[in-house]
Amino acid sequence: MIYKIAVKDARYKLDGNAGSDAIHRDPVYSYAVTQLADDSGITGTGFAFTLGEGNDLVCKAAEYYAQKLVGKDIEETMADFGTLFKQLSDDQQFRWLGPHKGVVHLALASVTNACYDLWAKKKGLPLWKLLADLSPEAVVNTLDFSYLEDALTKEQAIVLLTEQQAGKATRGGILKTGYPGYDTSVGWFNYSDEKVRENCKKAIVAGFTAMKLKVGSADPERDIRRAHIVREVAGADVKVMLDANQQWNLPDAISICKKLTDVNPYWIEEPTHPDDVLAHRKLAREIAPVKLALGEHVPNKVIFKNYLQAEAAAFVQVDAVRVGGVSEFLTVSLLCKKFGIPVVPHVGDMGQLHQHLVLFNHIAMGHEALFLEHIPHLQKHFVHPANVKNGVYETPQEAGSSCELIGITI
Amino acid sequence: MIYKIAVKDARYKLDGNAGSDAIHRDPVYSYAVTQLADDSGITGTGFAFTLGEGNDLVCKAAEYYAQKLVGKDIEETMADFGTLFKQLSDDQQFRWLGPHKGVVHLALASVTNACYDLWAKKKGLPLWKLLADLSPEAVVNTLDFSYLEDALTKEQAIVLLTEQQAGKATRGGILKTGYPGYDTSVGWFNYSDEKVRENCKKAIVAGFTAMKLKVGSADPERDIRRAHIVREVAGADVKVMLDANQQWNLPDAISICKKLTDVNPYWIEEPTHPDDVLAHRKLAREIAPVKLALGEHVPNKVIFKNYLQAEAAAFVQVDAVRVGGVSEFLTVSLLCKKFGIPVVPHVGDMGQLHQHLVLFNHIAMGHEALFLEHIPHLQKHFVHPANVKNGVYETPQEAGSSCELIGITI
Repeated sequence: MIYKIAVKDARYKLDGNAGSDAIHRDPVYSYAVTQLADDSGITGTGFAFTLGEGNDLVCKAAEYYAQKLVGKDIEETMADFGTLFKQLSDDQQFRWLGPHKGVVHLALASVTNACYDLWAKKKGLPLWKLLADLSPEAVVNTLDFSYLEDALTKEQAIVLLTEQQAGKATRGGILKTGYPGYDTSVGWFNYSDEKVRENCKKAIVAGFTAMKLKVGSADPERDIRRAHIVREVAGADVKVMLDANQQWNLPDAISICKKLTDVNPYWIEEPTHPDDVLAHRKLAREIAPVKLALGEHVPNKVIFKNYLQAEAAAFVQVDAVRVGGVSEFLTVSLLCKKFGIPVVPHVGDMGQLHQHLVLFNHIAMGHEALFLEHIPHLQKHFVHPANVKNGVYETPQEAGSSCELIGITI
Repeated sequence: MIYKIAVKDARYKLDGNAGSDAIHRDPVYSYAVTQLADDSGITGTGFAFTLGEGNDLVCKAAEYYAQKLVGKDIEETMADFGTLFKQLSDDQQFRWLGPHKGVVHLALASVTNACYDLWAKKKGLPLWKLLADLSPEAVVNTLDFSYLEDALTKEQAIVLLTEQQAGKATRGGILKTGYPGYDTSVGWFNYSDEKVRENCKKAIVAGFTAMKLKVGSADPERDIRRAHIVREVAGADVKVMLDANQQWNLPDAISICKKLTDVNPYWIEEPTHPDDVLAHRKLAREIAPVKLALGEHVPNKVIFKNYLQAEAAAFVQVDAVRVGGVSEFLTVSLLCKKFGIPVVPHVGDMGQLHQHLVLFNHIAMGHEALFLEHIPHLQKHFVHPANVKNGVYETPQEAGSSCELIGITI
């Protein structure tokens, strides 16, 4: 039984322009951390990700949700978590602050993630293993399909997972080889051209075959020059992703993306406003076969459904510490599977939680094991930091979701 | 010069099931109130609207924005408010909690509205008059057109307003007749059938020619029965609006809306999830000529643009205390004018602020003077309560935006 809760505001300054992009010149990677203490002596930890200012608001909202879990048994709770998730996200007064977006939804993510962590720890299993061993019905019972009925019902989701059962053993081979990573840190926005060039070389040596550059400069020529640097150092076979962090309006995006075609980007990420489904659809059509990726600022499953229905995103970067937690991440992953679109999470968690989720998505849902973003900047703060070697995430073996932070105790 | 700011959490319990709808069974009408004290002795008041829980979070976020106004001259600020609005809404750390939605955007609404109020009070004019007398350029300088460029640029907005200049004098006739109202309070969700019937009769006697019923029950038969009661009492000529408060998924919405066609609704409001642009498009096509209205849960101009581009809403209910304040309300109103869609605000402000804005929309923007929602439940709390007689809002004459609340002082 959960007998005590605590929510902590954890903020981590970054060194030397790491984390900078076209919008965020001085980010402070921050977690609103929920801890659920169980009377078995086990504590579940989950968090949502922000960039500093206002992280306290998320903590305050998370306390409101977490209080409702006191007295509950975690296994009983997770047996029908989808219903609880809907109840909490539709809290009649609180939902007016969203619904299903912004501070309140980030707070729900923090609490939801703590529930999944506690569940796995009580089972003594890494989260990927707990999830992969569940029946399709048990997985789906942790999810909420409200407002998705025109695209995917609960019953259809069970069928989808059931169809994938046969291939699970084969796809489980990834547990030995590890899940491929890609390097986001070669080209933060504030890095000099020289540093970008040097980082690309280092990434290649470290075994990465995919890497990302931040673009979205007020001067498109800077973007184009730097993209060519990365392509030149990386060679033709490496996947190069370009991330504009929402800096372009639609007319500018069309024009600049066409100019970036030369460097053969694997995707162009967040070209414009994250709420603008129809602008992304138009852009995707204009610049095909160049593909778009987005998701770190898409707050919920309903908007992801719209992106998928509009064929506006070729890669979905849903993030379990940015939508309503693991539950909504899995729901969106099922939607993507239905639409045949790969899930390549944004990692506000630095990959700690997502290393579990992409293994599950591959093994049990049949998603392609493409690659998972790798950002090393907070490694020293985690009790069990993700282990990325030769460009590959080693499969985590500790019980839970690998989200415990050093010094954050209930 | 603004020398002091204060943000207050004002909550008002409602009596006897007033305010109840399909989601909100026990709402507490609440305002996050920003006050800006000017060294001329004048104080500007603005607010955002919530339903209770979490109103303190909006207040906390509003303080963050309001602090940035200390030391500024209000007239200089409003001469280029569009730039400031963009800066505040794109605050590099804070925007991660949105962007442009949820708690942080409501907070921006509160602060923005206080700016417009202070501006009008310093000019000694009711807000409608201040705005109506501005040049098209001066109006547009208070707005932010970012991410709208594919639908409406700043330059196009100036042209649009300039074209409407010639008809201003004629349309100004509305100042004498008053702006028509409609009665939202005949059919709150928890009211009994008898009370609904009685309220309809009262509304007719009070001079209203349009009224709204809350639907979205778990039992569609209840909705249909009550809709017929309203139509029967109101007669064929009164406009009857049905409000489902997001309770239906798309398949259910299609089925129930078709059954409600019999009562000839003037519109069906918020049939499904407010983020689901494509579901509304599909529904609108399926149930035509019955029309859809929505907007109270649409947080920003980008999503409104999507609704307009998708031809998914026939009436736009943008609310200046729910989007980013008066500035974004006017931007969305311009977008609607471009697309030929009427603006019929939701009134989280109980019509206090919107009585000014609809007059401006009609006189200077050429929007049809359809009608403005009327909710009387908080009248006694306002210093200058809106005066609705014979179903018509009398034109406010006091300086400012009529948003001062009794007992809320800096």
